[in-house]
Amino acid sequence: MADNKLGRQTVTFKKFPQIYMAFSTAGKKEGQGPLKNWFDSVLEDDKIGQRTWEEAETKMLKDTVVGAVRKAEIDKHEIDVIFSGDLINQLMSSSYAVREMGIPFLGLYGACSTMSESLIMAGAFVNAGYSKYAAAAASSHFCTAERQFRMPLAHGNQKPPSAQLTVTGCGCALLRESEGAAGCCEGKPVYVTGGTIGKIVDKGINDTNMMGAAMAPAAVDTIETHFIETGRGPEYYDMIFTGDLGKIGKDIVKDMLGKKGFDMTKNYEDCGCMIYGEDQDAHSGGSGCGCSGSVLCGYIFKNMKSGDLKNVLVVSTGALLSTISTQQGESIPGIAHAVAISTEKERF
Amino acid sequence: MADNKLGRQTVTFKKFPQIYMAFSTAGKKEGQGPLKNWFDSVLEDDKIGQRTWEEAETKMLKDTVVGAVRKAEIDKHEIDVIFSGDLINQLMSSSYAVREMGIPFLGLYGACSTMSESLIMAGAFVNAGYSKYAAAAASSHFCTAERQFRMPLAHGNQKPPSAQLTVTGCGCALLRESEGAAGCCEGKPVYVTGGTIGKIVDKGINDTNMMGAAMAPAAVDTIETHFIETGRGPEYYDMIFTGDLGKIGKDIVKDMLGKKGFDMTKNYEDCGCMIYGEDQDAHSGGSGCGCSGSVLCGYIFKNMKSGDLKNVLVVSTGALLSTISTQQGESIPGIAHAVAISTEKERF
Repeated sequence: MADNKLGRQTVTFKKFPQIYMAFSTAGKKEGQGPLKNWFDSVLEDDKIGQRTWEEAETKMLKDTVVGAVRKAEIDKHEIDVIFSGDLINQLMSSSYAVREMGIPFLGLYGACSTMSESLIMAGAFVNAGYSKYAAAAASSHFCTAERQFRMPLAHGNQKPPSAQLTVTGCGCALLRESEGAAGCCEGKPVYVTGGTIGKIVDKGINDTNMMGAAMAPAAVDTIETHFIETGRGPEYYDMIFTGDLGKIGKDIVKDMLGKKGFDMTKNYEDCGCMIYGEDQDAHSGGSGCGCSGSVLCGYIFKNMKSGDLKNVLVVSTGALLSTISTQQGESIPGIAHAVAISTEKERF
Repeated sequence: MADNKLGRQTVTFKKFPQIYMAFSTAGKKEGQGPLKNWFDSVLEDDKIGQRTWEEAETKMLKDTVVGAVRKAEIDKHEIDVIFSGDLINQLMSSSYAVREMGIPFLGLYGACSTMSESLIMAGAFVNAGYSKYAAAAASSHFCTAERQFRMPLAHGNQKPPSAQLTVTGCGCALLRESEGAAGCCEGKPVYVTGGTIGKIVDKGINDTNMMGAAMAPAAVDTIETHFIETGRGPEYYDMIFTGDLGKIGKDIVKDMLGKKGFDMTKNYEDCGCMIYGEDQDAHSGGSGCGCSGSVLCGYIFKNMKSGDLKNVLVVSTGALLSTISTQQGESIPGIAHAVAISTEKERF
């Protein structure tokens, strides 16, 4: 089975697990942005009738998983395992969302890299035959993240232009084995063909309003490793998407990879730069697990289904800080995992 | 590949990934208990020269991974991925420990079930050929957990007899493919033959001094599912170990499984009941990821190496609460994952 890996960090899925269905949910503000027509569901208000913001995030995530299950026309009991994570302490949103669904649960934490992480895990499990259906999910909510990581919401504090806005949103992808899959869904089949697992990179940034700069070197490391281990270059992909680097981080990725000989000026975008419009006061862009989660399960998945995108690399990016590490003067470690997705059975 | 699963929740590893080496570290108090001779390393003091308790836990975890690597006589760069988790917000201990090692990292959160979770993941990755060497780790530290989840340490508050003590300790298991493994290590080979992924079970307990009772129903659910899906009964195993149910939780498991027709009175123990002596003022017993982490990588692994234990089921148990969920009046969801370990290539 040694041919299921390339180099040290890249895993390949030769059985081509399929993203059978995906469902994406966005908050009210995200639903007013440039991607508004690509989400499956937009919240009318971000508390959706719950007592607390944490309960609202929990309900959003649960509704998203249920949405994916319904759209796929399967029963939730057909899902063998769900890989999910979020930003709230002890994965509160994921744990409480899954509690009510009776689906076997493996919790992940990769900060905002969680959507890539869960997709690699689900792909790995379906490809190896450990699961027939596996769900990959990630969520974030502006109101839960803001008060946990930064300031009380009512404080209304100002932020510098380098700061990013935590996306209220989430995504759930349902993976299943390709063999024998009739394909309930119209459009092209969408396969997860492999992934590159990231190393932690920390360049000493300790300003929590500079998350893009803190995470960009990790994205560069993972993307470069992906290119080296697979022999592919940027031109192989129709599009490369990073998770939530925002404007500053995106520029750093272009610069750093450019200096290494990889031209990222033609087909590279960042989900954090795509999700809000210039008039939406989002400073450097969106962040949070729900940023790449909702963009991947909405815009990217649907553009692959329609055939407008064929080969895509999604590189969700995470900042592995905590409030305690910040208080103790630690710098911000970054991580990024890359997932290769294709409408063709593309072998590495 | 459909034969890599049994039922919905059980995965099987037919390539028999081997726990090539394991290393366990215990705190000072744990190193004075009944298992003192089974740990690879005992801390002289629990702050080990660091500025903060969080930095001490980080160093303990890092030293444990390095200890496993040295004992296995390999280079850390041979490890393709490390699966690790802990109890501190945003997996601070794992993230900062791995940051300095350059090993590709997939963070997990399963509360105190993390050691089983990381072992299932590492087994799944090695079995499927995604990794040659994969590390599985988990840590907890009394002083970081106590002040995060309960009271400031200096408060010196009293606890009821049902309360448990968070173990200062951690474990790291290094898995590799069996094929072609010369086996650097003396003694019997130790294989991870499969696992049963748990569902979240919440019976409405909301007293954080009753964690054993909160987690026991999840352990019962996973163990019963394991028996049903594999066709094995309690008698199949030399020993079944739960993670950290303590005295109260252990009794509940015996009662509940007994009523379901599974006799757990002969060969069942709980790591939380084993790690402290009666004279150590540990109330209902030990808890924390490091409880089953250090007992599995110390006592259990070494007893398998020597041939004293042949077939073992380890069921680490987690309480998926957070401080926020407690403040908001939520009950405590429990989860448990079971890992089957054998010195023989035992097929399910």
